[in-house]
Amino acid sequence: MNPTCDVQGRRIDAGFKLSRVGVTGVKKQIRIKRSAKDNGINGVLTCDIDVFVDLPAVQKGSHLSRNLEVIAEIVDESVRSPTDGIENLAAEICSKLLSRHDYAHTADVSITADYFRSAVTPNGRDTVESYGLIGEASCVRGRPIRKTLGITVVGMTACPCAQETVVGITGYGGNIPAMSHNQRNVCTLMLSMDEGVEVEADDLIDLVEKSFSSPTFELLKRDDEAAVVMNAHSNPKFVEDVVRDVLRRLVEGYPDLPDDIGVLVSSESEESIHKHNAFAERYATLGELRS
Amino acid sequence: MNPTCDVQGRRIDAGFKLSRVGVTGVKKQIRIKRSAKDNGINGVLTCDIDVFVDLPAVQKGSHLSRNLEVIAEIVDESVRSPTDGIENLAAEICSKLLSRHDYAHTADVSITADYFRSAVTPNGRDTVESYGLIGEASCVRGRPIRKTLGITVVGMTACPCAQETVVGITGYGGNIPAMSHNQRNVCTLMLSMDEGVEVEADDLIDLVEKSFSSPTFELLKRDDEAAVVMNAHSNPKFVEDVVRDVLRRLVEGYPDLPDDIGVLVSSESEESIHKHNAFAERYATLGELRS
Amino acid sequence: MNPTCDVQGRRIDAGFKLSRVGVTGVKKQIRIKRSAKDNGINGVLTCDIDVFVDLPAVQKGSHLSRNLEVIAEIVDESVRSPTDGIENLAAEICSKLLSRHDYAHTADVSITADYFRSAVTPNGRDTVESYGLIGEASCVRGRPIRKTLGITVVGMTACPCAQETVVGITGYGGNIPAMSHNQRNVCTLMLSMDEGVEVEADDLIDLVEKSFSSPTFELLKRDDEAAVVMNAHSNPKFVEDVVRDVLRRLVEGYPDLPDDIGVLVSSESEESIHKHNAFAERYATLGELRS
Amino acid sequence: MNPTCDVQGRRIDAGFKLSRVGVTGVKKQIRIKRSAKDNGINGVLTCDIDVFVDLPAVQKGSHLSRNLEVIAEIVDESVRSPTDGIENLAAEICSKLLSRHDYAHTADVSITADYFRSAVTPNGRDTVESYGLIGEASCVRGRPIRKTLGITVVGMTACPCAQETVVGITGYGGNIPAMSHNQRNVCTLMLSMDEGVEVEADDLIDLVEKSFSSPTFELLKRDDEAAVVMNAHSNPKFVEDVVRDVLRRLVEGYPDLPDDIGVLVSSESEESIHKHNAFAERYATLGELRS
Repeated sequence: MNPTCDVQGRRIDAGFKLSRVGVTGVKKQIRIKRSAKDNGINGVLTCDIDVFVDLPAVQKGSHLSRNLEVIAEIVDESVRSPTDGIENLAAEICSKLLSRHDYAHTADVSITADYFRSAVTPNGRDTVESYGLIGEASCVRGRPIRKTLGITVVGMTACPCAQETVVGITGYGGNIPAMSHNQRNVCTLMLSMDEGVEVEADDLIDLVEKSFSSPTFELLKRDDEAAVVMNAHSNPKFVEDVVRDVLRRLVEGYPDLPDDIGVLVSSESEESIHKHNAFAERYATLGELRS
Repeated sequence: MNPTCDVQGRRIDAGFKLSRVGVTGVKKQIRIKRSAKDNGINGVLTCDIDVFVDLPAVQKGSHLSRNLEVIAEIVDESVRSPTDGIENLAAEICSKLLSRHDYAHTADVSITADYFRSAVTPNGRDTVESYGLIGEASCVRGRPIRKTLGITVVGMTACPCAQETVVGITGYGGNIPAMSHNQRNVCTLMLSMDEGVEVEADDLIDLVEKSFSSPTFELLKRDDEAAVVMNAHSNPKFVEDVVRDVLRRLVEGYPDLPDDIGVLVSSESEESIHKHNAFAERYATLGELRS
Repeated sequence: MNPTCDVQGRRIDAGFKLSRVGVTGVKKQIRIKRSAKDNGINGVLTCDIDVFVDLPAVQKGSHLSRNLEVIAEIVDESVRSPTDGIENLAAEICSKLLSRHDYAHTADVSITADYFRSAVTPNGRDTVESYGLIGEASCVRGRPIRKTLGITVVGMTACPCAQETVVGITGYGGNIPAMSHNQRNVCTLMLSMDEGVEVEADDLIDLVEKSFSSPTFELLKRDDEAAVVMNAHSNPKFVEDVVRDVLRRLVEGYPDLPDDIGVLVSSESEESIHKHNAFAERYATLGELRS
Repeated sequence: MNPTCDVQGRRIDAGFKLSRVGVTGVKKQIRIKRSAKDNGINGVLTCDIDVFVDLPAVQKGSHLSRNLEVIAEIVDESVRSPTDGIENLAAEICSKLLSRHDYAHTADVSITADYFRSAVTPNGRDTVESYGLIGEASCVRGRPIRKTLGITVVGMTACPCAQETVVGITGYGGNIPAMSHNQRNVCTLMLSMDEGVEVEADDLIDLVEKSFSSPTFELLKRDDEAAVVMNAHSNPKFVEDVVRDVLRRLVEGYPDLPDDIGVLVSSESEESIHKHNAFAERYATLGELRS
């Protein structure tokens, strides 16, 4: 008798197909390509990884250790030869999951990481800002992999309604925009696309940062702080406005992307005047947004 | 000039429709009906509530304060006359959102809460156990509301594979099941249904608790602890087994529920032998599960 | 042989004394006294409870199930006869822990809960606001119990520095305060005292809400929103100012409290212009604050 | 008039001294020294940083942007010349905070990061495991800096009490240890020391991993999984035992460390048989532990 018999591979009767079986919360460091101007450490990401395959009704269990083997191999490759994007890493894992789990028909991968970039304040000072990266991939055996690149950016919104109401109530006629409530806003942009399509995360971050009332900065001296405040109050925006501005810039800035790109944009404001948040979201294909 | 003009209601050109606009993280206490045997406080839930409606392309903003008015009204009603389920409360809010936002075509509501029930240990001692409740509702104007009742239950799984491998390697032939690794498991069961259909959260909790290797208890004296451990090792289960057992009990226990009920079952084990979790999930209609 | 021998109570050699042994994350519903004007459900709290006792060097383990028995008994009592404060509940648990663990010399208890109160907006509308409650107690056998009452309040701060800088740079001379950045602020106030001393959580919440640039509200119609914004900009405050205003109100408002009251006040702003938070804190005795 | 006058530096009357004023949640990537065998990316840490200084009663505010300047400078240095430990990075920041805030008398710094190391399973397979690193430093002007190195390790505990009770109830006499409940355990070890003292984080991780019932691994094939399970059941441990074993190894393994080292060891088990956790902790000086 083989002392380590394959319990997972056992045939069962009257089972149910399972949509997704896998592991969650696997932590790994990976290396991604960065442009020459960046110092070396910017290309190292600390990732949280979830991977899944489906399971046929007749098989007792999924071989979970194979998932960890696949992740380890792909991550090792990324250390020797940096991957050109977290979503492409997800796609590579996805593809290898299907070849390792021969009983599976679908595979899903999700990766998140903190990301850092150099930035410049309104008055020209250097800072480093942090962002969130999301890479996802899913595939059905025999069909092309679909991958998703997502970014999470923290910025600032100033409320246009409170600003107008303050003006209406007070008859304010000053030389600068009136006060309003303003707050931290988290904007997420996710693009789903076929494996061959390439979009730069840095370009998406730039696009989103322009869509807030103002981007925010880690290090602001006094004149920079005033510039951010005045910039935000000159561009008051609801969460709805942030989402729509991202959508508009996406349609205008990516005329060559195919119509079947899936788009999700959300904007959540940690309202300074409330204990709850304000939220807006649009999901659509790029084709729908263009029409 | 009206000092508080309606900025949100303003017409805009070249806008984009938004899928969901609303508020997240609204905290409220509500009252739900409980059976006579429970003491009064068990029917009071502390809830986290998210609500959304869609927004047409031609309108600048959604009137977010109306969402809070709707929530406050429904919650006040629940205090005077307890609602008969968190999912029905969600449905009521959903319906009222559409009547208050006359420009909206869809509404979505999500509520989560901790929930408490009396329980009895294997050897007959009384305890109180905690669970998670989820109530959701969504609707398209002019069509029936679709609501979702969900529960989250913490239980225990013992691994069948490690148990067999230990036996295989050691040639174990003891009078009781062999050792294995076992761990905390979180199982979620969600049922989506038309507004008129009623399912009891307590019944779903019972169903899920039977599907673990063993349920867990807040208070265990020594003999009860041993009973839980032996029970779990006599019923070793993968995360896949937990999901499938819930599915089987659901199909067998609810023959009268319509085929179009949406079912989602997930099981996540905080693996004692790994730093990551094991996860299994099935989403399907009840009709698909029956076929 | 007793089949359930006392492993925990076993004598050991060369052990180390342990400072705290116990259980964390116990969820319970308790009932506290509320004033007559409140509806019944406001007095029901969903609590997270941690309890600990110390352990002598010569004993192998602490009897953890006794902790759950003590919690269950005290909670049951609170349902029959509501406790007059979360910190007094903690003190009762603390006292009972020492009587149940006869080998222990110290006991520590910590309880947190969401809390809800009626409030009125600047223009007189009714709302319900949510807060955090903290109740702690610790004791050394043979000495009086020391208990802690804490509250967590979400409010709003507007930055005085950015406001002055905007004025300085623009030469602003409008009839209303200039714009500034403003954001959600979380202020925590904790008072440690002997068991006999009584302080009302509601009074502490009132005190803290007056110390923000403005309190915040769940439900604000347009004129109320403008009032909150103008109020905040007329009372610009650093996190330092919030802490100091709470300290000042505490010293002035509680002349009869003993000097040995321990005070901790912190204020954390989720800066709208940064991705990080600003934080200020003072810990001292009331006697030190008075001198 | 200077358009950016120093609001923070303003003198105030009747103020209160503040214990800590600063910033929290600053995210940064830093580089630390690693041994030659590691690939380059292991030395890059993604950190969360909190920094504080105190504030005299007569000064309105702390100059928060200086904190970000200090962090940025130290982090830049670490990229050019890797620091030899997260606690030493904290000490450098601490020192620089005091020189930049000339009105401050104390400074406090806290840094946390995920950390990765190569490991080998019981049967000799290579894996990479993740850990938590904690670096802290605090100082009073004119006195030596005190720094803290901490690690967080996830391992496994099997319960000795349930194991003995199972044997007692069943009369089990098998050739291998009896079943028990086992679960994920998080053990934290923190050492506070003068700036000149050096302790290796890797040595502390080794020490803690030996103190669980078994260490855990990301990737286990079937025979390795059985080895971990059998290892754990041959070394059943309460949370109390884990803490005491860490203390014993610390006293035995570091005879040359000074008596004034501050030690904190905690062990928290995510109990598989309960919905709550079990917890044990000891804080003491190394001198006290030795006596």
